[in-house]
Amino acid sequence: MDVMRRIEDTIATVIGQGERGKYPPKLAAAIRHAVFPGGARIRPRLCMAVAIACGASEDLRAAESAAASIELFHCASLVHDDLPCFDDAALRRGRPSVHVAFGEEIAVLAGDALIVLAYQALLGAGAEHAAKLPSLMHTLCRAAGMPSGIVAGQAWESEPNASLAEYHRAKTGILFSAATESGAIAAGADPSRWTALGARLGEAYQVADDIRDVAASSHDTGKPMGQDLAHGRPSSTRALGLKGALKRFEYLLDSALASIPSCPGGSDLQELIRLESQRLIPEEISRQAA
Amino acid sequence: MDVMRRIEDTIATVIGQGERGKYPPKLAAAIRHAVFPGGARIRPRLCMAVAIACGASEDLRAAESAAASIELFHCASLVHDDLPCFDDAALRRGRPSVHVAFGEEIAVLAGDALIVLAYQALLGAGAEHAAKLPSLMHTLCRAAGMPSGIVAGQAWESEPNASLAEYHRAKTGILFSAATESGAIAAGADPSRWTALGARLGEAYQVADDIRDVAASSHDTGKPMGQDLAHGRPSSTRALGLKGALKRFEYLLDSALASIPSCPGGSDLQELIRLESQRLIPEEISRQAA
Repeated sequence: MDVMRRIEDTIATVIGQGERGKYPPKLAAAIRHAVFPGGARIRPRLCMAVAIACGASEDLRAAESAAASIELFHCASLVHDDLPCFDDAALRRGRPSVHVAFGEEIAVLAGDALIVLAYQALLGAGAEHAAKLPSLMHTLCRAAGMPSGIVAGQAWESEPNASLAEYHRAKTGILFSAATESGAIAAGADPSRWTALGARLGEAYQVADDIRDVAASSHDTGKPMGQDLAHGRPSSTRALGLKGALKRFEYLLDSALASIPSCPGGSDLQELIRLESQRLIPEEISRQAA
Repeated sequence: MDVMRRIEDTIATVIGQGERGKYPPKLAAAIRHAVFPGGARIRPRLCMAVAIACGASEDLRAAESAAASIELFHCASLVHDDLPCFDDAALRRGRPSVHVAFGEEIAVLAGDALIVLAYQALLGAGAEHAAKLPSLMHTLCRAAGMPSGIVAGQAWESEPNASLAEYHRAKTGILFSAATESGAIAAGADPSRWTALGARLGEAYQVADDIRDVAASSHDTGKPMGQDLAHGRPSSTRALGLKGALKRFEYLLDSALASIPSCPGGSDLQELIRLESQRLIPEEISRQAA
């Protein structure tokens, strides 16, 4: 079974656990709307890729649980980020955002339920992997909450003195680090050797997002464009210009690849990351800037 | 050290973990505002009381972690319930609610961060208690999310066909059951024998809340009154009348006491619950109704 299929199946299993017996139907529909059909599932695929690179090819259940957990938390953060009090975004992945489709109450609750489901996903690895649970939980908590997880990153938008680095690390980088670290934990490897890969890929991804926010069209990205500027948010294209941001992206990607520690599947992982990175910046933009 | 002090210290330790290094100060202040000074801490005290009744008097760390976890999740749900899209409540525990004091963005994020902290609290029990972690997590997930936890309970308010029992069980009862079950798990006892106590106390607490909502003043309760009626929510006083609701409260309390399984500290626990229950219905209301 391919990796993408494993991720989708695991996420579907976790969400299905929340639909047993009697449940509030609108909330259930909103949760599914927030999660399916997914985007590129870049974080869970990274998690699985690291687990496989570390040699966990026979029993991937811990990696699947960790990957699903990270994606579910990511979906939660998107639902809440789109709310009227934040981005007030009407579109997400080319469809109405959750609060537009289901109302604000259900969107707040869908985000909450998805955070809970992210933790619940970690319980799916089975008793043989129970010893990994504290590390996986700790990694998710750090990437999710205070002082420097996704939620804290979003809160920096309400602070007058946020640095771009601080903001990006918390807003994006840390969930990528959690993905690489969790993949290592799931495979029984040392997570601290995999932090740098996640952090650099996360920053590269954020820079690519900033580039697309100014240079691509809504049609390409499935969400409203020019949002960073409109909301006065820190942005690498604003700080570095389009050319400078593209250069920064290349630098981060190279340094991510260089950080991959020695492991059974290191060269396959390098190849995969190189391929993936080409999807992040539309060719036309690179050409325009050159 | 007394139980209340242990609970406050454990909660403070967990929140302190989120304030290391650089963190967004408004969000940190909002989290503290949501949690301190606390209310009666009725759920965590119930959790600790059950753990002690089950014989866990020497090492209470697992019980403290579970108790703090349940209270932090409860605080999260209050912050989100008070939001403009739900109750739009300006007051909570006699002070401005979080969104009034810090704005809606920070209130959404504070609730999210508190959910994460609830799970983080479970990691505080230490390696000796790691074997209890999956059960404690499972219990919290069930009480928190889909299909029948607190978040699902709140979502029934957006459904045209919610039954009063379903709504109350999800909205209040289940977190009380999680408190009693978690106390049992922390003490190494069988949690399933403690579900009924939590469920009945939770329902009794909800009925008492409905009674106070129509019969007490804002001054007594520290939050706006008449909210159930104003929001058209299911309420036992509306369904049964004030007298009927008081009778229902007495019945639930008796059946809660009768459900306590045989355990080392059973009679102390009965005594404690009897005492606590007297604080739930102001004497004046009982007199008026009689």
